Amino acid sequence: MLTYSFSDTGSDSLYQHLYKCIKNDILARNLRAGEKLPSKRTFAKNLGISVITVENAYAQLISEGYLYSVPKKGFFVSDISMLPSGTAFGQSNLTRSLSDAAERTNMKNPGGKPDHADIEEAPGLASLPSSFIDLTSNQTDIRNFPFSIWAKLVREVLNENQQELVTNPPCGGVWELRSAITRHLKDFRGISVAPEQIIMGAGTEYLYSLLIQLLGFDKTYAVEDPGYRKIARIYEKHKVACRHIPLDESGVCVSALEKSGADVLHLSPSHHFPTGLVTPISRRYELLGWAARAEGRYLIEDDYDSEFRMIGNPIPAMQSIDLSEKVVYINTFTKTLASTVRISYMILPRHLADRFYRELSFYSCTVSNFEQYTLAHFIENGSFEKHINRMRSYYHKKRDLLIQKIRQSELAPHAIIREEDAGLHFILELHTGLSDTEICRRALQKELRIAALSSFYAQMAPGIEHRFIVNYSALPEEQIDEAIRILCEIIT
Amino acid sequence: MLTYSFSDTGSDSLYQHLYKCIKNDILARNLRAGEKLPSKRTFAKNLGISVITVENAYAQLISEGYLYSVPKKGFFVSDISMLPSGTAFGQSNLTRSLSDAAERTNMKNPGGKPDHADIEEAPGLASLPSSFIDLTSNQTDIRNFPFSIWAKLVREVLNENQQELVTNPPCGGVWELRSAITRHLKDFRGISVAPEQIIMGAGTEYLYSLLIQLLGFDKTYAVEDPGYRKIARIYEKHKVACRHIPLDESGVCVSALEKSGADVLHLSPSHHFPTGLVTPISRRYELLGWAARAEGRYLIEDDYDSEFRMIGNPIPAMQSIDLSEKVVYINTFTKTLASTVRISYMILPRHLADRFYRELSFYSCTVSNFEQYTLAHFIENGSFEKHINRMRSYYHKKRDLLIQKIRQSELAPHAIIREEDAGLHFILELHTGLSDTEICRRALQKELRIAALSSFYAQMAPGIEHRFIVNYSALPEEQIDEAIRILCEIIT
Repeated sequence: MLTYSFSDTGSDSLYQHLYKCIKNDILARNLRAGEKLPSKRTFAKNLGISVITVENAYAQLISEGYLYSVPKKGFFVSDISMLPSGTAFGQSNLTRSLSDAAERTNMKNPGGKPDHADIEEAPGLASLPSSFIDLTSNQTDIRNFPFSIWAKLVREVLNENQQELVTNPPCGGVWELRSAITRHLKDFRGISVAPEQIIMGAGTEYLYSLLIQLLGFDKTYAVEDPGYRKIARIYEKHKVACRHIPLDESGVCVSALEKSGADVLHLSPSHHFPTGLVTPISRRYELLGWAARAEGRYLIEDDYDSEFRMIGNPIPAMQSIDLSEKVVYINTFTKTLASTVRISYMILPRHLADRFYRELSFYSCTVSNFEQYTLAHFIENGSFEKHINRMRSYYHKKRDLLIQKIRQSELAPHAIIREEDAGLHFILELHTGLSDTEICRRALQKELRIAALSSFYAQMAPGIEHRFIVNYSALPEEQIDEAIRILCEIIT
Repeated sequence: MLTYSFSDTGSDSLYQHLYKCIKNDILARNLRAGEKLPSKRTFAKNLGISVITVENAYAQLISEGYLYSVPKKGFFVSDISMLPSGTAFGQSNLTRSLSDAAERTNMKNPGGKPDHADIEEAPGLASLPSSFIDLTSNQTDIRNFPFSIWAKLVREVLNENQQELVTNPPCGGVWELRSAITRHLKDFRGISVAPEQIIMGAGTEYLYSLLIQLLGFDKTYAVEDPGYRKIARIYEKHKVACRHIPLDESGVCVSALEKSGADVLHLSPSHHFPTGLVTPISRRYELLGWAARAEGRYLIEDDYDSEFRMIGNPIPAMQSIDLSEKVVYINTFTKTLASTVRISYMILPRHLADRFYRELSFYSCTVSNFEQYTLAHFIENGSFEKHINRMRSYYHKKRDLLIQKIRQSELAPHAIIREEDAGLHFILELHTGLSDTEICRRALQKELRIAALSSFYAQMAPGIEHRFIVNYSALPEEQIDEAIRILCEIIT
């Protein structure tokens, strides 16, 4: 049984002491990844401390990625906490180890460097205990996944499509699914494409890697700054040149893009992460113009949460106004269904689809047939549309409630809400003298996780401090009051 | 309605004429990918020819990848048949277009260049009509997938694991599945590893791409010659240096490997594809020695069908005798369950696992939670072991029957069977004056698809002609006699 002495805790509180002891044991490999920790109750009893103290220490370790919890099973040492053996991490080096943990858990990096608070897809992020409030999570609330209809369709597919289930699909994916998606895109997004232009993949990250192989390792790629950091990391890991292009009030700055020497621009014009900006139609045409001016230039349009636009007419996808075959459109079902359903797709312009089939069709489709057929039926029988409508109204209601509560709270005089009309997050600007890092740190201490806009910039820009990203998609309604109370407490 | 004139068929048979007409329309884009062709009966009636003629033309087009069939729905223009617009392919250029079709469908390339007859995973391969006999297919027979137990487990998971299903797993995959795999590997393969060393991925091809990012784009990779061509293609598509190392009678030739300057060797010592060779223990130690002699050297051990070894004690995996953390072990469930279930995994040595979590843990796991939990339960409740045992005995029986029938046939005096004790294919050596290309071509005309060993060599070697790969895993028993009859007809 794990035991620690509490005879000399220095200036640390009991919970801080316990937190450090466990963390050091994890860093020293005395506790191995996957190892189960004592239950909070047993541990508290054995150490002669309160259950709340253990709970707080565990919560902190979870939030930093050292532990993870499995419902009904307990707390385990996280495998994302592995560090190189022999590295001298200890209590004296807290900043360094915190920063490494943050690196691995995509959390705010207190060192001030850009971080990787990947709200869209954050797989390494351990789930927080229910007492924690998480304004960075993209996880689907269990109540929102359409389990009963999904289960029914899985059953039908397993009964009725056995031959199809064991038949190798084309490299681009199961035909029925790609056809269903084309019909959905036409009705829902005004995008007219043929099924053979659609390539299915197990997550957008995998598709990015295919795109690098398709467009070329020798090309220069550009990403938005600020932006969804994971995209830049994927380019970096593939050792291709990657430039960070600043945004102005309309989106990617065309003159900076021109100067950068980039060939391929990766952007999210429907709803930029994290600023929430929607690129207006004029800028869309300017960017298409940039792409058309030279051979080998392309735009990768990441349309990840366009389904959840709250008000107004959706602006046409760049794909749909592209006459020069310059736009690769990417979307995913991880936002609309669940982050754990790994089904995404890209739409290639015809000449790139041709190139794909010529050069890359030896790859097997990465999505299993079972889920492709289930999803195809889900779209075809209208369930997908119903589900999106239900979710949109659910998110709409939650956003309205959250904003209303903020406006009625003591936080109201100190806060401005921005970019709340698209997607599943908005920006909360707080009037405070505290630094962003300090606010995030204090919030974490109070069991609230929130990310600052500034942490998504590669190059710092003026006037971006004190803006925080409120991702409300996974926020339970019953936590709203408490979240506002904590923020109030910190800044007032 | 599609129509063709049969007034001038030249020296072509009716079926050849129809085949060429349709193919030209596909190449000229008059028939678009996804377009449905007339039913055989209707088409025959309209053209005034027999149903058999249409059937033969369709079959030929399917075998070359121009068409694919969907059970109960009909015949469609394949998306793997896309070729660059404007390329002058026509009847006069049959070899060229056949060769391109072969490129895309992983079929025998009659041009004599190495081909990509990917028997392990051949996604682009359109399914042949039932009259065709396919000795290159890896597809699971519908009767062999454990549908009822799988359906039961899916139902249970969807009922009982809802919270887990929507909770983001660690980047390496769902813990329960990785634990179940470690237990299975220990019992079944003598491999002792911790769950955190296991990384799940949507197919081995995806894992290769992760490994390049992990081991380095600046490293030189080596593959076996002959070998499973897709591996070399993946390295080529990632623009990393790739060398082809010849095999001798024990496997990869160590002196050639040494000379090549390679850092990483990709091999399948349990059952080499396509030769069937099993690398003896002495050579395994030599290769481990090679890896140990320099920093940054690694072996990627692809153990893709070790579960189906037919006789004798399985030779220990290189992973299990590796004391220097030099072996990355890769295995897949596409062989044991179905080629359309995209779940594979790799085992990283501890220091590489550390590096993986440090550098690549921002990637989301590419396998959906739903299938990870279902498979975890399938392994844990003993179903997986039962399934493998059942399949092993099924394949054993089929192999015995096939070999017995060959030995009792008129083919016997002209044939030698080699390397029949491991895995799901063996080598059939035929005494004939015909070239390999000619034999494969004649076989295809007679509706039999078979691949020659020589087509898997990057550099031709002496004495490899007239050896053919017989992949019997997907061969229905009722086709055995006919397959032997056709081969007999060709070579006698």
